[in-house]
Amino acid sequence: MATAMPPTVCWAQTRAGPAVRLIDQTLLPGELVLKDCYVLEEVCEAIKSLRVRGAPAIGCSAALGVALAVYTSGADSTSELISVVEAAAEQLAATRPTAVNLFWALERMRQLAQQSTDLPPEDFRQVLLEEAQGIVDDDLDRCRRIGQHGVELIAKGANILTHCNAGALATAGYGTALGVIRAAHQQSKDIHVWVDETRPLLQGARLTAWELEQEGIPCTVICDSAAASLMQAGQVDCVVVGADRITANGDVANKIGTYAIAVAAARHEVPFYVAAPLSTLDFSLASGQEIPIEQRSSEEVCYLAGRVADPICPEGADVYNPAFDVTPAELIAAIITEVGVARQPLAASLAGLSSEDSSAGCCSSS
Amino acid sequence: MATAMPPTVCWAQTRAGPAVRLIDQTLLPGELVLKDCYVLEEVCEAIKSLRVRGAPAIGCSAALGVALAVYTSGADSTSELISVVEAAAEQLAATRPTAVNLFWALERMRQLAQQSTDLPPEDFRQVLLEEAQGIVDDDLDRCRRIGQHGVELIAKGANILTHCNAGALATAGYGTALGVIRAAHQQSKDIHVWVDETRPLLQGARLTAWELEQEGIPCTVICDSAAASLMQAGQVDCVVVGADRITANGDVANKIGTYAIAVAAARHEVPFYVAAPLSTLDFSLASGQEIPIEQRSSEEVCYLAGRVADPICPEGADVYNPAFDVTPAELIAAIITEVGVARQPLAASLAGLSSEDSSAGCCSSS
Repeated sequence: MATAMPPTVCWAQTRAGPAVRLIDQTLLPGELVLKDCYVLEEVCEAIKSLRVRGAPAIGCSAALGVALAVYTSGADSTSELISVVEAAAEQLAATRPTAVNLFWALERMRQLAQQSTDLPPEDFRQVLLEEAQGIVDDDLDRCRRIGQHGVELIAKGANILTHCNAGALATAGYGTALGVIRAAHQQSKDIHVWVDETRPLLQGARLTAWELEQEGIPCTVICDSAAASLMQAGQVDCVVVGADRITANGDVANKIGTYAIAVAAARHEVPFYVAAPLSTLDFSLASGQEIPIEQRSSEEVCYLAGRVADPICPEGADVYNPAFDVTPAELIAAIITEVGVARQPLAASLAGLSSEDSSAGCCSSS
Repeated sequence: MATAMPPTVCWAQTRAGPAVRLIDQTLLPGELVLKDCYVLEEVCEAIKSLRVRGAPAIGCSAALGVALAVYTSGADSTSELISVVEAAAEQLAATRPTAVNLFWALERMRQLAQQSTDLPPEDFRQVLLEEAQGIVDDDLDRCRRIGQHGVELIAKGANILTHCNAGALATAGYGTALGVIRAAHQQSKDIHVWVDETRPLLQGARLTAWELEQEGIPCTVICDSAAASLMQAGQVDCVVVGADRITANGDVANKIGTYAIAVAAARHEVPFYVAAPLSTLDFSLASGQEIPIEQRSSEEVCYLAGRVADPICPEGADVYNPAFDVTPAELIAAIITEVGVARQPLAASLAGLSSEDSSAGCCSSS
C-alpha cells in the first residue's frame, strides 16, 4: 500500500543479465530514474556518490551487490566464489564508513558464504541471492513494524520535525522516521511535517518533501537553521529522525545537523525520537565518540550539491564538510525499533530489545 | 589599512547626475560590481532585493536615498522638499521591516528636514546630503570603535564562529562582528574563523568568506547545521555575530539561525557575543517578542538563492522562510557597542551605555 514508488533497491533480471536496480536519488525530485548496476563497481559507485543512501538502503544494496558479484563471476568452483564474496565485501565496506548496516549486511553475506562451502556453485549463487533478497524483504517488514511502534508516540494534530531522509528512499521501503510519519498519517492523525532541507546534499528538500508529497502528507520545507526558532515559537511537537549507527550507550550518529536539533529540542522540552532497525545498533562501540565520521568533499558545499557551475564560496575557500554528527543518548527521549520502543536509560533498554531478536544486532565494523 | 574594497555604499557625482553607489552584493563572490542608483526607486529595490543588506548598511543607504530624493526633485521650495523627504522616508521604511537602523536613519533625516524649514532649497539639499554622509562616516567610525572594544574579548589563537555577514559589506565599512575579527587579526591574535554559510541567501559563504579572504584572515566555511557539532568537539572558542535589532531587555533579532547557534553555545559554555552600534537598539520595544520578523519568498529556499533553474523542492512544495530569529538576552554573554561592552544584566548595561551617546539609541519603528 502507501506509495506508488518503485522499490528503492531490488534485484532485476534484465535482457543484459542480472542487475541491482536502484532509484538514482541524485536526480530527484526532478526526475525518477531507475539505474541498473550490472557489475559490482557500479553498485560501489552508486553508494559512494549517494545515488542510493540511507543506512538501511545501503545495507540492502551491499547485500545485493555481493549477490551480483557471485552472479557475474565466471568462477566454476564454490571455493573461488567464496573468494569473490570476500573481495566484494571488502570493496563494498570501503564505500562509506559511518552507517553500520553496511557492515552488518556484509557480515551476514560472508557468514552465509562460509557456511555454504559444500554447495555446488549454482546453488551457492542461488542461496546468496536469496539471502540478499531476504535482507531487503526483512528491511521492509522491519520498517512497517517501526511505524507501528512509533505511531503510539505521535499525538493527533502533531507538528513533527524531521531531518534528512529516513524514508522509503533510505530503506527497502516505507522508511524508519518516515515510517512512523506514514503510520501516523494512515491512522488519520492529522499530522504536519516540518522538513529540514538538510544541507549540503538537500535530502530533506529533495527526497523527504517528494516522498511526503507522493503520500499526500502535509509538509513544509525549512532551512536547517530555522528549526530552533520554530521550537521557540511552540510550532514543533516532536522530532523524529533516523540513524546511521547507534552505540551501546544509546548515542546516535546521524546526518550532520541532527545534534543541533537535539540540543534545541532539549531546551524546549520537545521529545526527540530516533527510529531505526536493530541492524543499526553497534554494541561493539561503547559510545558515539568511537564512531568514525565520514568527511566528504568541499564541493558538496561550494557547488550546492553539484547544482551550480559557479561556486558559492570565493575561489580556494577552505571548507569543512562532515557527513554526520553524534547525538548523545541523554538528549534522546526514545529509540523506536521494530521490536519495540527503547526508553531511558537507553543502554539497558536497547540491550533488552536486542536480545528479543537474534537475527539483528551488533557486528564489528572493522 | 584593512580592505581594498570600494565603499559598501556612498554618494557619487556621476556624468548622469548624483547617485547612490553601492556594491551589488547579490553578484559576490563571483563579480565585484558597483551599482549606481539614480532615483529613489532604485535604492528601494536595492534594499529589498538585498543588493545592499546588513542593518547598518541599510541605514546608510536609506539616509543617502533621502538625499537622492531631494537632489532629484525639481521642487523649488523648501516646503515642497520637506514633502519629498516625508514621501521618500515612507517609501524607504516599507522596504524591510526588521532592521531598526533603517528607521533610525530615516528619523534622523526627517528631524533634520523639519528643523531646516527656513533654509533656501539649495542649502536644504546640501544640509540633508551632509547629514546622510555624516551617518555613513559615523557608521564607519563606530565600527572601528566596536572593533577596539570587542578585541579585548578575543583570546590569542581563538577559533571564532560567525553567522551571516556582519562585515564591511553590512556597514559603511570595517564591520561589526567582522570589525571585532579584523581588530583581532590586526593585533596578530592568530585567530581562525568558522564561517556559517547562512542559508538561504548564503551571506556567510558568499560575503563573509570573501571579505576575510581579502584580509588574509584564515577561515573555513561550514554548513549552518555543522556549528553545534564543532562546539561539541571543542573547536569553537567564541561566537561573534551582528544584530538587526536589540530590544530594551537585550534580546537580539539577527539572521535566521542565530538562535540555534546561541542555544548550542549555551550548552557548551561557549561565549556568545553580539557586536552592533547603538543605532541597533530599540528601547521602544520591551522584548524580542515584539520585533516584527520579515517573511521572505519561498523561492530563496527552492531555487538556492536564485542560483539554479530547477527547484530543489518538489513542484508546489510549501516553504517557510523567516529572515530573522530572536536570541533571548539570557543566552548572550555580552553586546559589544562603540561606547563599550554591555554585560549581564544586559538591560541595565545597555541603558547605561546608551546614555553615554546622545546621538544614537532608540527610535520608534512604526
